[in-house]
Amino acid sequence: MIQTLCVIGVGLIGGSFARALRQTGAVNNIIGFDANTQALHAARDANVIDRIAHTITDAVSDADVVVIAVPVRSLAAVLTDLKPSLPKRALLMDVGSTKCDALASANVLGGQRHQFVPAHPIAGREKSGVDATDATLFQNRYAILTPDQHTNASAIARATQLWEKVGARVLKMSAEAHDEIFAAVSHLPHMLAFALVTEFAGRANASELFKFAASGFRDFTRIAASSPEMWRDVALTNRTALLAEMKQYRTALDTWIDCVERADGEALAKLMSISRDHRERWGRGEFNS
Amino acid sequence: MIQTLCVIGVGLIGGSFARALRQTGAVNNIIGFDANTQALHAARDANVIDRIAHTITDAVSDADVVVIAVPVRSLAAVLTDLKPSLPKRALLMDVGSTKCDALASANVLGGQRHQFVPAHPIAGREKSGVDATDATLFQNRYAILTPDQHTNASAIARATQLWEKVGARVLKMSAEAHDEIFAAVSHLPHMLAFALVTEFAGRANASELFKFAASGFRDFTRIAASSPEMWRDVALTNRTALLAEMKQYRTALDTWIDCVERADGEALAKLMSISRDHRERWGRGEFNS
Repeated sequence: MIQTLCVIGVGLIGGSFARALRQTGAVNNIIGFDANTQALHAARDANVIDRIAHTITDAVSDADVVVIAVPVRSLAAVLTDLKPSLPKRALLMDVGSTKCDALASANVLGGQRHQFVPAHPIAGREKSGVDATDATLFQNRYAILTPDQHTNASAIARATQLWEKVGARVLKMSAEAHDEIFAAVSHLPHMLAFALVTEFAGRANASELFKFAASGFRDFTRIAASSPEMWRDVALTNRTALLAEMKQYRTALDTWIDCVERADGEALAKLMSISRDHRERWGRGEFNS
Repeated sequence: MIQTLCVIGVGLIGGSFARALRQTGAVNNIIGFDANTQALHAARDANVIDRIAHTITDAVSDADVVVIAVPVRSLAAVLTDLKPSLPKRALLMDVGSTKCDALASANVLGGQRHQFVPAHPIAGREKSGVDATDATLFQNRYAILTPDQHTNASAIARATQLWEKVGARVLKMSAEAHDEIFAAVSHLPHMLAFALVTEFAGRANASELFKFAASGFRDFTRIAASSPEMWRDVALTNRTALLAEMKQYRTALDTWIDCVERADGEALAKLMSISRDHRERWGRGEFNS
């Protein structure tokens, strides 16, 4: 049983974690803190949190578990602020999409660094804020933990237990492996979708294009409505891996452009068949082992 | 009332059109023809068609309406084959995704060219074949007709009536305008999604990437499971417009790569905000007028 959970950043992930944990009956009291006062009041009005903290000290000083769910580039500042009041017994986690950066930020914790377990629940949505929170958000999703040699083993065990309680499948990997994998499978597609929509938006006939955009466009660009603050930070904190992915994709795109330019139907059909085969196998869950 | 509808190509679009029209009670008899005999038997077994035609002559010679739903590069050959047996009263339509090419192919019809109305229902799916057919596929979707100066006005009126019967909203535009718009909003995203999946598929750690790919990837790449035969043909027949779009996208991508390379968070957030704003407005139907 957790006496007091503190959630810093009551948006989609922080709020959903609070709701999910409350639903399991494993937490008595949830304190929320957010730089956005409006979001904080909305979270309390929606019973996502029990009490509003007006300072970080107030927020964390009685907490058994502190979850930080802020745009990733704000993590270091939050950790610096909470350090003086962080109880020695508390488990501290972030939930950001980039993990090398999270570990680096955690160095400000000094002697309490071992209490910090970097976590990334693979459960994004294009919507953000309290209204988008969902107690079932983490059900059957991976929660990836990226501890390093400084992380306390019992903190890892507690973090594992909590994520399992909210329905997630917990996996551990290095922060480096995490950031490379998610640069490819998540951060890159976001940039590609953002790029398509902004490119259309800038055209003289944008309204006409959007008028005729149909279900293929809808799904391809769903993530292009994602939070600019969050994704700007992801792009900057996972910059090296993302840049490598973007350049590799551009090279791949050049191959496709070349095939179309040469009207090479055979090569196109072959590439498309590879795509269809893998996407169908992915859809059947063949890579879930 | 249509006495006899002939569907050439009993896949997703042809089969769905047959089912949709049958459901309205507007057709007595549906004859199917397909190069793929297995598909043809499956269509009859599923009551998508009433009778199998073994030759094109048999298929069209009694037809009041002929719908050709084959990969776009097969259209000219089908038109050549059916021309000698095409009744003078018959309305002839294709349903392909590229329309300049359809009009050019229709020139083989000579004196019967006026019976041909190029149509494009904006109702794709990543699945193909009889099993994917759906009588509601065209409900509230656009059906775009791209007749030219040779097209008979009464044929256009009949085509309009049929597409409205199956629930579609009919619009007319030039084949050129059609092909440019759909190169952007449909053909380009397909190439981009295909390119992403094939790029991942070719990597040593492909299985690991696919394992961690989540909902963003799922939606972004849904269209990457589309029919290679269909999309190879689309890429080749709308080659010029598609190539222009792919190159324009590459230029846009270069801007994004440059922003990430320079770690320009302000520019990234600004671009992402433009994307989110337009995608949210699109989602609310603001461009549907």
